[in-house]
Amino acid sequence: MRVLVVMAMHAEAEPVVRELGLAPVSTPPWAAHVPMKLYQGRVGSMELDLVVNGVDKQSGLDLIGTQAATASAMLGCEAFKPDLVVSAGTCGGFAKRGGEIGKVYLAEDRVWYHDRRVPIPGFDAMARGGYMVANLDNVAETLGLARGVVTTGDSLDLSAEDSERIEAVGAHAKEMEAAAVAWVAGLFGAGFTALKSVTDIVDGPHPPEEEFFENLKHATEQLAKELVRLVHAIAEDAGLA
Amino acid sequence: MRVLVVMAMHAEAEPVVRELGLAPVSTPPWAAHVPMKLYQGRVGSMELDLVVNGVDKQSGLDLIGTQAATASAMLGCEAFKPDLVVSAGTCGGFAKRGGEIGKVYLAEDRVWYHDRRVPIPGFDAMARGGYMVANLDNVAETLGLARGVVTTGDSLDLSAEDSERIEAVGAHAKEMEAAAVAWVAGLFGAGFTALKSVTDIVDGPHPPEEEFFENLKHATEQLAKELVRLVHAIAEDAGLA
Repeated sequence: MRVLVVMAMHAEAEPVVRELGLAPVSTPPWAAHVPMKLYQGRVGSMELDLVVNGVDKQSGLDLIGTQAATASAMLGCEAFKPDLVVSAGTCGGFAKRGGEIGKVYLAEDRVWYHDRRVPIPGFDAMARGGYMVANLDNVAETLGLARGVVTTGDSLDLSAEDSERIEAVGAHAKEMEAAAVAWVAGLFGAGFTALKSVTDIVDGPHPPEEEFFENLKHATEQLAKELVRLVHAIAEDAGLA
Repeated sequence: MRVLVVMAMHAEAEPVVRELGLAPVSTPPWAAHVPMKLYQGRVGSMELDLVVNGVDKQSGLDLIGTQAATASAMLGCEAFKPDLVVSAGTCGGFAKRGGEIGKVYLAEDRVWYHDRRVPIPGFDAMARGGYMVANLDNVAETLGLARGVVTTGDSLDLSAEDSERIEAVGAHAKEMEAAAVAWVAGLFGAGFTALKSVTDIVDGPHPPEEEFFENLKHATEQLAKELVRLVHAIAEDAGLA
Protein backbone atom coordinates (compact mmCIF):
# COMPACT_ATOMS: atom_id res chain seq x y z
CA MET A 1 0.00 0.00 0.00
CA ARG A 2 1.25 3.44 -0.94
CA VAL A 3 -0.02 6.74 0.51
CA LEU A 4 0.64 10.19 -0.96
CA VAL A 5 0.35 13.19 1.36
CA VAL A 6 0.10 16.61 -0.31
CA MET A 7 0.79 19.76 1.74
CA ALA A 8 1.07 23.43 0.79
CA MET A 9 3.35 25.13 3.31
CA HIS A 10 6.73 24.16 4.69
CA ALA A 11 5.63 25.19 8.19
CA GLU A 12 2.76 22.71 7.93
CA ALA A 13 4.99 19.91 6.66
CA GLU A 14 8.01 20.32 8.94
CA PRO A 15 6.59 18.60 12.07
CA VAL A 16 5.14 15.81 9.89
CA VAL A 17 8.52 15.15 8.27
CA ARG A 18 10.14 15.09 11.72
CA GLU A 19 7.54 12.93 13.49
CA LEU A 20 7.34 10.36 10.68
CA GLY A 21 11.11 10.39 10.11
CA LEU A 22 10.70 11.11 6.39
CA ALA A 23 13.80 11.73 4.28
CA PRO A 24 14.08 14.60 1.78
CA VAL A 25 14.66 13.44 -1.81
CA SER A 26 17.13 15.75 -3.52
CA THR A 27 16.27 14.66 -7.07
CA PRO A 28 12.53 13.94 -7.22
CA PRO A 29 11.21 12.29 -10.40
CA TRP A 30 10.12 15.53 -12.08
CA ALA A 31 11.75 18.38 -13.99
CA ALA A 32 14.56 20.02 -12.04
CA HIS A 33 13.11 23.54 -11.96
CA VAL A 34 9.70 22.49 -10.67
CA PRO A 35 9.47 23.77 -7.05
CA MET A 36 7.61 20.82 -5.52
CA LYS A 37 9.60 19.08 -2.75
CA LEU A 38 9.53 15.37 -2.01
CA TYR A 39 9.95 13.48 1.27
CA GLN A 40 9.71 9.71 1.57
CA GLY A 41 9.55 7.06 4.24
CA ARG A 42 7.71 4.02 5.54
CA VAL A 43 5.08 3.43 8.16
CA GLY A 44 5.36 -0.28 8.86
CA SER A 45 5.43 -1.73 5.36
CA MET A 46 3.29 1.12 3.95
CA GLU A 47 5.20 3.43 1.58
CA LEU A 48 4.62 7.11 2.23
CA ASP A 49 5.39 9.96 -0.18
CA LEU A 50 4.96 13.56 0.94
CA VAL A 51 4.87 16.28 -1.73
CA VAL A 52 5.10 19.89 -0.52
CA ASN A 53 4.34 22.71 -3.00
CA GLY A 54 7.62 24.53 -2.49
CA VAL A 55 8.13 28.24 -2.96
CA ASP A 56 7.27 30.83 -5.56
CA LYS A 57 10.42 31.93 -7.42
CA GLN A 58 9.50 35.63 -7.46
CA SER A 59 8.42 36.12 -3.86
CA GLY A 60 10.09 33.24 -2.04
CA LEU A 61 6.73 32.53 -0.37
CA ASP A 62 5.13 29.09 -0.09
CA LEU A 63 2.87 28.32 -3.04
CA ILE A 64 -0.75 27.95 -1.92
CA GLY A 65 -4.11 27.43 -3.59
CA THR A 66 -5.69 24.96 -5.95
CA GLN A 67 -3.37 25.35 -8.93
CA ALA A 68 -0.26 24.51 -6.89
CA ALA A 69 -2.21 21.71 -5.17
CA THR A 70 -3.19 20.31 -8.58
CA ALA A 71 0.43 20.41 -9.73
CA SER A 72 1.72 18.69 -6.57
CA ALA A 73 -0.96 16.01 -6.73
CA MET A 74 -0.38 15.39 -10.46
CA LEU A 75 3.36 14.95 -9.95
CA GLY A 76 2.86 12.68 -6.95
CA CYS A 77 0.17 10.55 -8.60
CA GLU A 78 2.08 10.19 -11.89
CA ALA A 79 5.28 9.22 -10.08
CA PHE A 80 3.97 6.95 -7.30
CA LYS A 81 0.50 5.66 -8.30
CA PRO A 82 -0.74 5.90 -4.69
CA ASP A 83 -3.66 3.89 -3.32
CA LEU A 84 -4.70 6.80 -1.10
CA VAL A 85 -4.04 10.54 -1.34
CA VAL A 86 -4.29 12.79 1.73
CA SER A 87 -4.57 16.57 1.51
CA ALA A 88 -3.21 17.76 4.87
CA GLY A 89 -3.05 21.34 6.08
CA THR A 90 -4.68 24.16 7.93
CA CYS A 91 -8.16 25.63 7.53
CA GLY A 92 -10.68 28.10 8.78
CA GLY A 93 -13.25 26.65 11.20
CA PHE A 94 -16.80 27.69 12.05
CA ALA A 95 -17.69 28.42 15.69
CA LYS A 96 -21.39 27.80 14.93
CA ARG A 97 -20.50 24.23 13.94
CA GLY A 98 -18.16 23.54 16.89
CA GLY A 99 -14.92 24.78 15.32
CA GLU A 100 -12.06 25.91 17.56
CA ILE A 101 -8.38 26.73 17.07
CA GLY A 102 -6.27 23.57 16.73
CA LYS A 103 -9.24 21.24 16.19
CA VAL A 104 -8.38 18.69 13.49
CA TYR A 105 -11.03 17.41 11.08
CA LEU A 106 -10.89 14.26 9.00
CA ALA A 107 -12.95 14.85 5.84
CA GLU A 108 -16.40 13.32 5.75
CA ASP A 109 -18.84 12.71 2.90
CA ARG A 110 -17.74 14.95 0.01
CA VAL A 111 -15.22 17.72 -0.67
CA TRP A 112 -16.56 20.85 -2.36
CA TYR A 113 -15.48 23.98 -4.17
CA HIS A 114 -17.13 27.19 -2.98
CA ASP A 115 -15.67 29.58 -5.58
CA ARG A 116 -16.37 27.96 -8.95
CA ARG A 117 -19.66 29.25 -10.38
CA VAL A 118 -20.72 28.08 -13.83
CA PRO A 119 -24.49 28.58 -14.29
CA ILE A 120 -24.88 26.09 -17.17
CA PRO A 121 -26.76 22.82 -16.50
CA GLY A 122 -24.23 20.03 -15.83
CA PHE A 123 -21.30 22.43 -15.62
CA ASP A 124 -22.84 23.92 -12.45
CA ALA A 125 -22.58 20.59 -10.62
CA MET A 126 -19.12 19.83 -12.04
CA ALA A 127 -17.92 23.25 -10.85
CA ARG A 128 -19.02 22.54 -7.28
CA GLY A 129 -16.86 19.41 -7.07
CA GLY A 130 -18.47 17.18 -4.46
CA TYR A 131 -15.75 14.53 -4.64
CA MET A 132 -16.40 11.51 -2.38
CA VAL A 133 -13.88 10.82 0.36
CA ALA A 134 -12.58 7.34 1.16
CA ASN A 135 -14.45 5.46 3.87
CA LEU A 136 -12.15 5.70 6.90
CA ASP A 137 -14.98 5.54 9.44
CA ASN A 138 -13.43 2.66 11.40
CA VAL A 139 -10.07 4.35 11.61
CA ALA A 140 -11.67 7.68 12.56
CA GLU A 141 -13.71 6.04 15.29
CA THR A 142 -10.72 4.16 16.69
CA LEU A 143 -8.73 7.40 16.83
CA GLY A 144 -11.62 9.55 18.04
CA LEU A 145 -11.04 11.98 15.17
CA ALA A 146 -13.50 14.82 14.58
CA ARG A 147 -15.24 14.59 11.21
CA GLY A 148 -16.07 17.57 9.04
CA VAL A 149 -17.14 18.66 5.60
CA VAL A 150 -14.24 20.32 3.75
CA THR A 151 -14.70 23.11 1.20
CA THR A 152 -12.08 24.68 -1.05
CA GLY A 153 -11.51 28.06 -2.67
CA ASP A 154 -8.58 30.23 -3.74
CA SER A 155 -9.29 33.10 -1.36
CA LEU A 156 -8.51 33.57 2.32
CA ASP A 157 -11.36 36.04 2.71
CA LEU A 158 -15.07 35.27 2.45
CA SER A 159 -17.25 36.78 -0.27
CA ALA A 160 -21.05 36.62 -0.21
CA GLU A 161 -20.96 34.11 -3.11
CA ASP A 162 -18.44 31.90 -1.30
CA SER A 163 -20.41 32.06 1.96
CA GLU A 164 -23.64 31.01 0.25
CA ARG A 165 -21.95 27.86 -1.14
CA ILE A 166 -20.16 27.09 2.14
CA GLU A 167 -23.45 27.26 4.03
CA ALA A 168 -25.22 25.14 1.41
CA VAL A 169 -22.98 22.20 2.35
CA GLY A 170 -22.64 23.05 6.07
CA ALA A 171 -18.85 23.00 5.82
CA HIS A 172 -16.62 22.66 8.90
CA ALA A 173 -13.28 23.37 7.21
CA LYS A 174 -12.71 26.20 4.70
CA GLU A 175 -9.36 25.83 3.01
CA MET A 176 -7.50 26.25 -0.28
CA GLU A 177 -6.36 22.86 -1.62
CA ALA A 178 -8.44 19.77 -0.81
CA ALA A 179 -10.92 19.69 -3.71
CA ALA A 180 -8.13 20.07 -6.26
CA VAL A 181 -6.18 17.19 -4.72
CA ALA A 182 -9.37 15.09 -4.53
CA TRP A 183 -10.07 15.66 -8.21
CA VAL A 184 -6.54 14.60 -9.22
CA ALA A 185 -6.69 11.52 -6.97
CA GLY A 186 -9.93 10.58 -8.71
CA LEU A 187 -8.32 10.87 -12.15
CA PHE A 188 -5.81 8.23 -11.06
CA GLY A 189 -8.39 5.99 -9.39
CA ALA A 190 -6.84 6.60 -5.97
CA GLY A 191 -8.83 7.02 -2.76
CA PHE A 192 -8.83 10.44 -1.16
CA THR A 193 -9.19 12.07 2.21
CA ALA A 194 -8.29 15.37 3.85
CA LEU A 195 -7.04 16.21 7.33
CA LYS A 196 -7.39 19.88 8.28
CA SER A 197 -6.42 21.77 11.44
CA VAL A 198 -8.14 25.05 12.36
CA THR A 199 -5.96 28.21 12.41
CA ASP A 200 -8.77 30.76 12.37
CA ILE A 201 -12.49 31.06 13.03
CA VAL A 202 -14.33 32.19 9.90
CA ASP A 203 -17.39 33.34 11.85
CA GLY A 204 -15.36 34.81 14.71
CA PRO A 205 -14.43 38.45 15.40
CA HIS A 206 -10.89 38.41 13.93
CA PRO A 207 -9.90 38.61 10.23
CA PRO A 208 -8.23 35.34 9.13
CA GLU A 209 -4.98 37.08 8.15
CA GLU A 210 -4.54 38.11 11.81
CA GLU A 211 -5.39 34.75 13.35
CA PHE A 212 -3.58 32.62 10.80
CA PHE A 213 0.04 33.26 11.76
CA GLU A 214 -0.80 33.62 15.47
CA ASN A 215 -2.20 30.09 15.56
CA LEU A 216 -0.13 28.43 12.83
CA LYS A 217 2.35 26.76 15.19
CA HIS A 218 -0.31 25.29 17.47
CA ALA A 219 -2.50 24.20 14.55
CA THR A 220 0.38 22.55 12.68
CA GLU A 221 1.51 20.68 15.83
CA GLN A 222 -2.02 19.33 16.23
CA LEU A 223 -2.15 18.49 12.52
CA ALA A 224 1.16 16.58 12.67
CA LYS A 225 0.05 14.67 15.75
CA GLU A 226 -3.20 13.56 14.14
CA LEU A 227 -1.63 12.85 10.73
CA VAL A 228 0.94 10.56 12.35
CA ARG A 229 -1.84 8.76 14.25
CA LEU A 230 -3.91 8.55 11.04
CA VAL A 231 -1.23 7.00 8.82
CA HIS A 232 -0.26 4.52 11.56
CA ALA A 233 -3.91 3.53 11.96
CA ILE A 234 -4.36 3.16 8.19
CA ALA A 235 -1.25 0.97 8.02
CA GLU A 236 -2.54 -1.13 10.94
CA ASP A 237 -6.01 -1.37 9.41
CA ALA A 238 -4.41 -2.65 6.16
CA GLY A 239 -2.30 -5.19 8.09
CA LEU A 240 0.91 -3.36 7.20
CA ALA A 241 2.03 -2.20 10.65
CA MET B 1 11.56 24.67 -31.39
CA ARG B 2 8.63 23.02 -29.68
CA VAL B 3 5.27 24.65 -28.95
CA LEU B 4 2.64 23.32 -26.55
CA VAL B 5 -0.95 24.46 -27.05
CA VAL B 6 -3.36 23.85 -24.15
CA MET B 7 -7.13 23.96 -24.75
CA ALA B 8 -10.11 23.19 -22.53
CA MET B 9 -12.98 22.11 -24.77
CA HIS B 10 -13.17 19.69 -27.67
CA ALA B 11 -15.34 22.13 -29.63
CA GLU B 12 -12.55 24.71 -29.33
CA ALA B 13 -9.85 22.25 -30.37
CA GLU B 14 -11.59 20.47 -33.26
CA PRO B 15 -11.06 23.13 -35.97
CA VAL B 16 -7.46 23.63 -34.80
CA VAL B 17 -6.72 19.91 -35.10
CA ARG B 18 -8.29 19.90 -38.56
CA GLU B 19 -6.63 23.08 -39.88
CA LEU B 20 -3.15 22.15 -38.61
CA GLY B 21 -3.53 18.50 -39.64
CA LEU B 22 -2.64 17.27 -36.14
CA ALA B 23 -2.83 13.54 -35.40
CA PRO B 24 -4.47 12.14 -32.25
CA VAL B 25 -2.07 10.14 -30.05
CA SER B 26 -3.85 7.10 -28.65
CA THR B 27 -1.32 6.41 -25.88
CA PRO B 28 -0.05 9.77 -24.59
CA PRO B 29 2.91 9.67 -22.18
CA TRP B 30 0.82 9.84 -19.01
CA ALA B 31 -1.26 7.45 -16.90
CA ALA B 32 -3.94 5.68 -18.91
CA HIS B 33 -6.96 6.89 -16.91
CA VAL B 34 -6.00 10.56 -17.05
CA PRO B 35 -8.56 12.26 -19.35
CA MET B 36 -6.21 14.70 -21.11
CA LYS B 37 -6.05 14.12 -24.88
CA LEU B 38 -2.97 14.64 -27.03
CA TYR B 39 -2.64 15.70 -30.68
CA GLN B 40 0.71 16.17 -32.41
CA GLY B 41 2.06 17.54 -35.65
CA ARG B 42 4.56 19.86 -37.25
CA VAL B 43 4.45 23.39 -38.61
CA GLY B 44 7.48 23.56 -40.85
CA SER B 45 10.17 22.08 -38.64
CA MET B 46 8.50 23.30 -35.44
CA GLU B 47 7.06 20.50 -33.30
CA LEU B 48 3.56 21.17 -32.03
CA ASP B 49 1.82 19.35 -29.16
CA LEU B 50 -1.82 20.08 -28.38
CA VAL B 51 -3.21 18.93 -25.03
CA VAL B 52 -6.99 19.11 -24.57
CA ASN B 53 -8.44 18.65 -21.06
CA GLY B 54 -10.78 15.83 -22.01
CA VAL B 55 -14.03 15.04 -20.25
CA ASP B 56 -15.21 14.62 -16.69
CA LYS B 57 -15.92 10.94 -15.97
CA GLN B 58 -19.13 11.64 -14.01
CA SER B 59 -20.85 14.10 -16.31
CA GLY B 60 -19.21 13.46 -19.67
CA LEU B 61 -18.72 17.24 -19.99
CA ASP B 62 -15.49 18.94 -21.04
CA LEU B 63 -13.28 19.76 -18.07
CA ILE B 64 -12.85 23.53 -17.69
CA GLY B 65 -11.22 25.88 -15.24
CA THR B 66 -7.80 26.41 -13.73
CA GLN B 67 -7.31 23.03 -12.06
CA ALA B 68 -7.83 21.11 -15.31
CA ALA B 69 -5.69 23.69 -17.12
CA THR B 70 -2.92 23.20 -14.55
CA ALA B 71 -3.09 19.42 -15.02
CA SER B 72 -2.98 19.65 -18.83
CA ALA B 73 -0.10 22.10 -18.76
CA MET B 74 1.86 20.02 -16.22
CA LEU B 75 1.50 16.87 -18.31
CA GLY B 76 2.43 18.68 -21.52
CA CYS B 77 5.42 20.50 -19.99
CA GLU B 78 6.78 17.40 -18.23
CA ALA B 79 6.44 15.30 -21.38
CA PHE B 80 7.58 17.74 -24.09
CA LYS B 81 9.66 20.51 -22.43
CA PRO B 82 8.21 23.14 -24.79
CA ASP B 83 9.92 26.44 -25.60
CA LEU B 84 6.57 28.21 -25.75
CA VAL B 85 3.17 27.37 -24.24
CA VAL B 86 -0.05 28.82 -25.68
CA SER B 87 -3.35 28.85 -23.79
CA ALA B 88 -5.97 28.99 -26.55
CA GLY B 89 -9.72 29.22 -26.09
CA THR B 90 -12.76 31.39 -25.74
CA CYS B 91 -13.41 34.30 -23.42
CA GLY B 92 -15.78 37.03 -22.37
CA GLY B 93 -15.02 40.43 -23.93
CA PHE B 94 -15.78 43.97 -22.80
CA ALA B 95 -17.75 46.29 -25.08
CA LYS B 96 -16.34 49.32 -23.24
CA ARG B 97 -12.84 48.24 -24.29
CA GLY B 98 -13.74 47.39 -27.91
CA GLY B 99 -14.73 43.75 -27.40
CA GLU B 100 -17.08 42.09 -29.90
CA ILE B 101 -18.16 38.51 -30.62
CA GLY B 102 -15.48 36.58 -32.51
CA LYS B 103 -12.72 39.12 -31.88
CA VAL B 104 -9.46 37.29 -31.12
CA TYR B 105 -6.94 38.71 -28.66
CA LEU B 106 -3.28 37.82 -28.35
CA ALA B 107 -2.26 38.32 -24.71
CA GLU B 108 -0.32 41.46 -23.91
CA ASP B 109 1.74 42.49 -20.90
CA ARG B 110 0.69 40.19 -18.01
CA VAL B 111 -1.93 37.53 -17.29
CA TRP B 112 -3.88 37.90 -14.06
CA TYR B 113 -6.16 36.03 -11.69
CA HIS B 114 -9.29 37.93 -10.65
CA ASP B 115 -10.64 35.42 -8.10
CA ARG B 116 -7.72 34.69 -5.76
CA ARG B 117 -7.82 37.01 -2.74
CA VAL B 118 -5.24 36.55 0.00
CA PRO B 119 -4.93 39.74 2.08
CA ILE B 120 -1.49 38.98 3.52
CA PRO B 121 1.50 41.08 2.33
CA GLY B 122 3.36 39.17 -0.40
CA PHE B 123 0.67 36.54 -0.72
CA ASP B 124 -1.71 39.20 -2.06
CA ALA B 125 0.55 39.87 -5.05
CA MET B 126 1.27 36.16 -5.60
CA ALA B 127 -2.48 35.45 -5.60
CA ARG B 128 -3.06 37.99 -8.37
CA GLY B 129 -0.64 36.20 -10.72
CA GLY B 130 0.56 38.85 -13.14
CA TYR B 131 2.63 36.43 -15.21
CA MET B 132 4.58 38.07 -18.05
CA VAL B 133 3.72 36.98 -21.58
CA ALA B 134 6.35 36.28 -24.23
CA ASN B 135 7.24 39.19 -26.50
CA LEU B 136 5.48 38.37 -29.76
CA ASP B 137 5.05 42.03 -30.76
CA ASN B 138 6.63 41.57 -34.19
CA VAL B 139 4.51 38.54 -34.99
CA ALA B 140 1.36 40.26 -33.73
CA GLU B 141 2.06 43.34 -35.82
CA THR B 142 2.75 41.30 -38.95
CA LEU B 143 -0.53 39.44 -38.48
CA GLY B 144 -2.53 42.49 -37.40
CA LEU B 145 -3.67 40.66 -34.27
CA ALA B 146 -5.62 42.53 -31.61
CA ARG B 147 -3.81 42.67 -28.27
CA GLY B 148 -5.52 42.38 -24.93
CA VAL B 149 -4.99 41.87 -21.22
CA VAL B 150 -6.18 38.42 -20.17
CA THR B 151 -7.62 37.65 -16.73
CA THR B 152 -8.53 34.27 -15.28
CA GLY B 153 -11.02 32.94 -12.76
CA ASP B 154 -13.01 29.75 -12.14
CA SER B 155 -16.46 31.30 -12.58
CA LEU B 156 -18.45 32.16 -15.68
CA ASP B 157 -20.43 34.81 -13.81
CA LEU B 158 -19.06 38.07 -12.44
CA SER B 159 -19.02 38.84 -8.73
CA ALA B 160 -18.33 42.30 -7.33
CA GLU B 161 -14.94 41.09 -6.07
CA ASP B 162 -14.02 39.66 -9.49
CA SER B 163 -15.17 42.81 -11.30
CA GLU B 164 -13.06 45.04 -9.05
CA ARG B 165 -9.92 43.05 -9.93
CA ILE B 166 -10.77 42.85 -13.64
CA GLU B 167 -11.19 46.63 -13.80
CA ALA B 168 -7.97 47.18 -11.86
CA VAL B 169 -6.00 45.66 -14.75
CA GLY B 170 -8.30 46.89 -17.56
CA ALA B 171 -8.74 43.36 -18.90
CA HIS B 172 -9.98 42.66 -22.42
CA ALA B 173 -10.46 38.89 -22.08
CA LYS B 174 -12.10 37.20 -19.05
CA GLU B 175 -11.60 33.48 -19.19
CA MET B 176 -10.94 30.38 -17.06
CA GLU B 177 -7.52 28.90 -17.86
CA ALA B 178 -4.73 31.25 -19.02
CA ALA B 179 -3.12 32.27 -15.70
CA ALA B 180 -2.88 28.64 -14.57
CA VAL B 181 -1.18 27.64 -17.82
CA ALA B 182 1.11 30.68 -17.60
CA TRP B 183 2.16 29.72 -14.08
CA VAL B 184 3.00 26.16 -15.11
CA ALA B 185 4.91 27.36 -18.19
CA GLY B 186 6.95 29.60 -15.88
CA LEU B 187 7.83 26.66 -13.60
CA PHE B 188 9.39 24.95 -16.60
CA GLY B 189 11.14 28.07 -17.89
CA ALA B 190 8.98 28.10 -21.03
CA GLY B 191 7.64 31.24 -22.68
CA PHE B 192 3.88 31.80 -22.53
CA THR B 193 1.14 33.47 -24.43
CA ALA B 194 -2.64 33.24 -24.72
CA LEU B 195 -4.97 33.56 -27.69
CA LYS B 196 -8.62 34.13 -26.76
CA SER B 197 -11.74 34.52 -28.92
CA VAL B 198 -14.81 36.36 -27.60
CA THR B 199 -18.02 34.30 -27.16
CA ASP B 200 -19.89 36.73 -24.92
CA ILE B 201 -19.86 40.36 -23.87
CA VAL B 202 -19.34 40.67 -20.11
CA ASP B 203 -20.70 44.23 -19.98
CA GLY B 204 -23.48 43.52 -22.49
CA PRO B 205 -27.19 42.85 -21.87
CA HIS B 206 -27.11 39.03 -22.11
CA PRO B 207 -25.97 36.57 -19.40
CA PRO B 208 -22.81 34.72 -20.58
CA GLU B 209 -24.49 31.31 -20.31
CA GLU B 210 -26.94 32.39 -23.04
CA GLU B 211 -24.39 33.93 -25.38
CA PHE B 212 -21.71 31.29 -24.91
CA PHE B 213 -23.22 28.40 -26.86
CA GLU B 214 -24.89 30.72 -29.40
CA ASN B 215 -21.52 32.15 -30.40
CA LEU B 216 -19.26 29.18 -29.72
CA LYS B 217 -19.06 27.99 -33.33
CA HIS B 218 -18.24 31.43 -34.76
CA ALA B 219 -15.77 32.20 -31.98
CA THR B 220 -13.94 28.88 -32.30
CA GLU B 221 -13.70 29.26 -36.10
CA GLN B 222 -12.10 32.67 -35.61
CA LEU B 223 -9.84 31.24 -32.90
CA ALA B 224 -8.67 28.38 -35.12
CA LYS B 225 -8.00 30.75 -38.02
CA GLU B 226 -5.85 33.05 -35.88
CA LEU B 227 -4.10 30.22 -34.03
CA VAL B 228 -3.05 28.66 -37.35
CA ARG B 229 -1.75 32.04 -38.55
CA LEU B 230 0.02 32.58 -35.20
CA VAL B 231 1.90 29.26 -35.11
CA HIS B 232 2.90 29.62 -38.77
CA ALA B 233 4.18 33.14 -38.07
CA ILE B 234 6.09 31.97 -34.98
CA ALA B 235 7.66 29.15 -37.01
CA GLU B 236 8.62 31.63 -39.74
CA ASP B 237 9.97 34.13 -37.21
CA ALA B 238 12.16 31.35 -35.76
CA GLY B 239 13.36 30.37 -39.24
CA LEU B 240 11.60 27.00 -39.02
CA ALA B 241 9.00 27.42 -41.77
